[in-house]
Amino acid sequence: MEALLRQSRGMCPFLHKTSPATLRSLSTSTNAAQANMSNLQVTAGQCPVMGKALAVQSTRANTLLSGAFGGSRAYSTRTTRAPRAYLHTTRAEKAQAVDSSPLRRDDVRYPAPAQHQQQQVHQQSSKDMHGAPPVPPNASRFDYNAFYQTELDKKHKDKSYRYFNNINRLAKEFPRAHKDTPEDKVTVWCSNDYLGMGRNPQVLKKMHETLDMYGAGAGGTRNISGHNQHAMGLEATIAKLHAKEASLVFSSCYVANDATLATLGSKFPDCVILSDSSNHASMIQGIRHSGAKKIVFKHNDMADLEQKLASLPAETPKIIAFESVYSMCGSIGPIEQICDLADKYGAITFLDEVHAVGMYGPNGAGVAEHLDYEVYANGGSPKGTIQDRIDIITGTLGKAYGCVGGYIAGSSKLVDTIRSLAPGFIFTTSLPPATMSGAQAAIEYQMAYKGDRRLQQLHTRAAKDALAAKDIPVIPNPSHIIPVLVGDAAVARKASDLLLEEHGIYVQAINYPTVPVGQERLRITPTPGHIREYRDHLVDALDKVWNQLGIKRTSDWAAQGGFLGVGQDTSVEPLWTDEQLGLSEVNSELNKAGKDAVNVLESVLEAERKEVAQAVASA
Amino acid sequence: MEALLRQSRGMCPFLHKTSPATLRSLSTSTNAAQANMSNLQVTAGQCPVMGKALAVQSTRANTLLSGAFGGSRAYSTRTTRAPRAYLHTTRAEKAQAVDSSPLRRDDVRYPAPAQHQQQQVHQQSSKDMHGAPPVPPNASRFDYNAFYQTELDKKHKDKSYRYFNNINRLAKEFPRAHKDTPEDKVTVWCSNDYLGMGRNPQVLKKMHETLDMYGAGAGGTRNISGHNQHAMGLEATIAKLHAKEASLVFSSCYVANDATLATLGSKFPDCVILSDSSNHASMIQGIRHSGAKKIVFKHNDMADLEQKLASLPAETPKIIAFESVYSMCGSIGPIEQICDLADKYGAITFLDEVHAVGMYGPNGAGVAEHLDYEVYANGGSPKGTIQDRIDIITGTLGKAYGCVGGYIAGSSKLVDTIRSLAPGFIFTTSLPPATMSGAQAAIEYQMAYKGDRRLQQLHTRAAKDALAAKDIPVIPNPSHIIPVLVGDAAVARKASDLLLEEHGIYVQAINYPTVPVGQERLRITPTPGHIREYRDHLVDALDKVWNQLGIKRTSDWAAQGGFLGVGQDTSVEPLWTDEQLGLSEVNSELNKAGKDAVNVLESVLEAERKEVAQAVASA
Repeated sequence: MEALLRQSRGMCPFLHKTSPATLRSLSTSTNAAQANMSNLQVTAGQCPVMGKALAVQSTRANTLLSGAFGGSRAYSTRTTRAPRAYLHTTRAEKAQAVDSSPLRRDDVRYPAPAQHQQQQVHQQSSKDMHGAPPVPPNASRFDYNAFYQTELDKKHKDKSYRYFNNINRLAKEFPRAHKDTPEDKVTVWCSNDYLGMGRNPQVLKKMHETLDMYGAGAGGTRNISGHNQHAMGLEATIAKLHAKEASLVFSSCYVANDATLATLGSKFPDCVILSDSSNHASMIQGIRHSGAKKIVFKHNDMADLEQKLASLPAETPKIIAFESVYSMCGSIGPIEQICDLADKYGAITFLDEVHAVGMYGPNGAGVAEHLDYEVYANGGSPKGTIQDRIDIITGTLGKAYGCVGGYIAGSSKLVDTIRSLAPGFIFTTSLPPATMSGAQAAIEYQMAYKGDRRLQQLHTRAAKDALAAKDIPVIPNPSHIIPVLVGDAAVARKASDLLLEEHGIYVQAINYPTVPVGQERLRITPTPGHIREYRDHLVDALDKVWNQLGIKRTSDWAAQGGFLGVGQDTSVEPLWTDEQLGLSEVNSELNKAGKDAVNVLESVLEAERKEVAQAVASA
Repeated sequence: MEALLRQSRGMCPFLHKTSPATLRSLSTSTNAAQANMSNLQVTAGQCPVMGKALAVQSTRANTLLSGAFGGSRAYSTRTTRAPRAYLHTTRAEKAQAVDSSPLRRDDVRYPAPAQHQQQQVHQQSSKDMHGAPPVPPNASRFDYNAFYQTELDKKHKDKSYRYFNNINRLAKEFPRAHKDTPEDKVTVWCSNDYLGMGRNPQVLKKMHETLDMYGAGAGGTRNISGHNQHAMGLEATIAKLHAKEASLVFSSCYVANDATLATLGSKFPDCVILSDSSNHASMIQGIRHSGAKKIVFKHNDMADLEQKLASLPAETPKIIAFESVYSMCGSIGPIEQICDLADKYGAITFLDEVHAVGMYGPNGAGVAEHLDYEVYANGGSPKGTIQDRIDIITGTLGKAYGCVGGYIAGSSKLVDTIRSLAPGFIFTTSLPPATMSGAQAAIEYQMAYKGDRRLQQLHTRAAKDALAAKDIPVIPNPSHIIPVLVGDAAVARKASDLLLEEHGIYVQAINYPTVPVGQERLRITPTPGHIREYRDHLVDALDKVWNQLGIKRTSDWAAQGGFLGVGQDTSVEPLWTDEQLGLSEVNSELNKAGKDAVNVLESVLEAERKEVAQAVASA
């Protein structure tokens, strides 16, 4: 019986896939609809082979089957011989009743198109169909093309299929870009080149020089001819930026997050990773790839995080993974409180500052630095600051720094461990020398000069104020992100298309899975280059599109109780204070001006812009 | 009993980690050394809590324990009450006997240094130690720094710790580079910028122009403002290069391999991935990340692959993942035979051409194209060629094409599926416009002009011949890689150091884990720039270092029966034939010349070099 079952499992896809325990349970449980049959008998009835046999031999079937499929011993003694013929035996003469139609449900899901020559099923005569392995398999094959088509159809159906826009951002006309032809220009309002460093003259000059002197590519991994003064200089600069002992540069911050979490999570014995529910895909992948236990805590919910930390043994290694600026809603992580909890429960902290580096803090090191603004602005000791307490900071060179690449910063030992163990770092070509030298120039520029990020913040305030004045629903937050709520995937896409086609404004619609269904939005990111004329144009265009498509206004959301903070009495203080922005002198004026505050801000803003332009020209 | 066990598991790390089934088995199995005790009792004796209790209550212990730890029902009726006090109960007054010493072996492995303030164990009074959760845990914490140190110590101990060399490759003096200072120059003999395209004037010109016009970075993901004419142009060029419908560009080919295999392997239902045992780390990671079943077949062993394919059900989706040029030994995958097996068993093929693109074939599309050299050279239809039969080709822009980045090429549906589903593609910043335009220029240049890769092959032949003449052991292979066998990690590193310090030649030592222990080597990669003077210098330096360190010669390996083909009667035909290299006219001369063949080759080689120089100058 055992031998027969083994043999049968080699041929029958159902038996092959199903464990003996399940088979046993199927054969002993009865079917709800047909109480006189076991669940296994009902299943067998769906098989093209067994089904026919059952129909013909209905009188004997009930007792035969249970035994044939490995039923309990009580049945098997009576049925050792009879079912052979129906179980795809190796004896060809017993297989005459076999139907050559597909045996698997997969084939129904992904039908093989007849015209596909290469993957067409190679039909053999029924005489050959049951020869002993190894022979080319004779059942239907998996239809890869049909599978791709099904996956793509799903994306179209749920409106998550992505259509890319051809946007060519012009360095000399920032924040303008051209579409398919150089004449067809638009204003880009959704780039993550937040500070326009991608067209910064110092950065470009450095890159041109490096390109000429050291060529286009690194020519190898860091270990094999791809390590050079550019990598060393960049990593020293990043370590200095974050006041850490060391840093390590990766192809991207996606790779940095993925490789670092995957490495630590898999190497620490019995590691647990506590992950904010709004974390970026790169961290989610890194945690998955680590194989470590993952515990998701509610977005920015410290009570939930503490409860989850407290449930873990003290000596278990724990990583709390979170972000400073969550890029799709603009919320900011409670960094200090997370450090406190990490200390209390013996965890280490992994902070993604991707959307914050270059943008916050007196040196542009991010939100963690910003929280000790005075200490860092006055050149005080970083010891004991919030940034100092973070174990691992990750950041990008591709957003506020205008280039490409990512990094981690932390203690020498941590960085050396990742350097030595992470395949995603070890086995890949280094970033090009010009990319590394350009990124280093961008960091150094932003460490020396705060004007760009202050102007960016002023433009953000002005844009948020102007949108509020027009009743356009912005999800409130303390950061530089302006998420404009739409609440429907098709409408968000339509709004984005109308802005592009009719108003020459490019703002990408953000749909599921990047944000949850029902929270679809337009994500607007002002830069220092988005001066008043662009802003007025944007607000006017949004107002028209909102009318045209009948999209809910802030007051509409308020009327139904508010959503995501929109239309709710949510007062959010910006992370950059008036004082940090140098607005203390006009603060009283702003307060006095009330509804006209936008105009008062404008004058400050214009003065600020001229200051930046002069500084850049003379640098 | 159940409630007690649940409660106990919340407090005891051993019970928390151990499944009920294991506990049951431990309590019913007996210990080999102490036959009168169950394995659970022996384990309990090692616990600082239970150990003491056992010592005191030795007369009662044997029967009590089995029940307390969830033993079989026969024991449990007698023991439901007694063990409460010894299982870290929540009642403080019963916990007086508890020792505060560490409870876990981890603490022994990574002892907490006393001076580490932040992670120091927070000692509480014994009265507090067993309060109800959530409270800050009171046992020893995991020592992260000690863990990093242990991992680094391991790397030092097994000689796999990597020391990076500061090598700055000079575009205008290729293949020369400087070390720490511009004056301290060396010749690079191990770069993967195989063709010197990193300093190709057309590539650099294109990059400078793009940098000026479109800036340093892409500024967003492909979906959000990071899609542009450069991405579209590059992907169209790659698709054309490989005669495929479509292609997709990633941050690197590491990411391309990882993301593509992880996506397909996880999406295809019950997918099995068959992987060559010598596959690159990026593929190994991608397969691991997919969670799919992985079957490793012996390197280039078609009988082994077929046996494994034949063991799988016909309708199971299968991916055969392999390489064309295996970069550490220079062997070449049997592409056509793998296509045949894939057809026979309904698998798809995933071919990594990373070390072959730009280097083989009349268009530089790689080994798959090279195998139908005449068809492609004459502009014939690709239909039915070996390259056409491959489902997924992956390649890099960072080696022979001199830039950075990676890609896949295949059918439109496949590429669109990966584009739509792979997080590693979706959620990362695009490559910079200048990188993409530079890479496109490099591919187009190599499609139009074969001179570089022919000269590279001639230099490879000449170097292999010259090394053979000096009895220096080269692992035989048909490709452009020259692996020189050393066979010891420390000696290989010493040889590399001597070459660098005493001879101004940079060749990185390749040690474990990149190659197996005992197969350590120097991996030499000639380029079109490695003209005779560099080669003579290299061979002479290697000869001296071999003498100095007493490294085995080819004849030494032969004397002990040979190893990895070295010193064995292995005749390997280069993939580039004499005819493809345009040597047919001097072929007879070469044959006649016999031992002096090197010199005959030299004259052809010099003519070839001049031709390339002229072509580059006039292009």
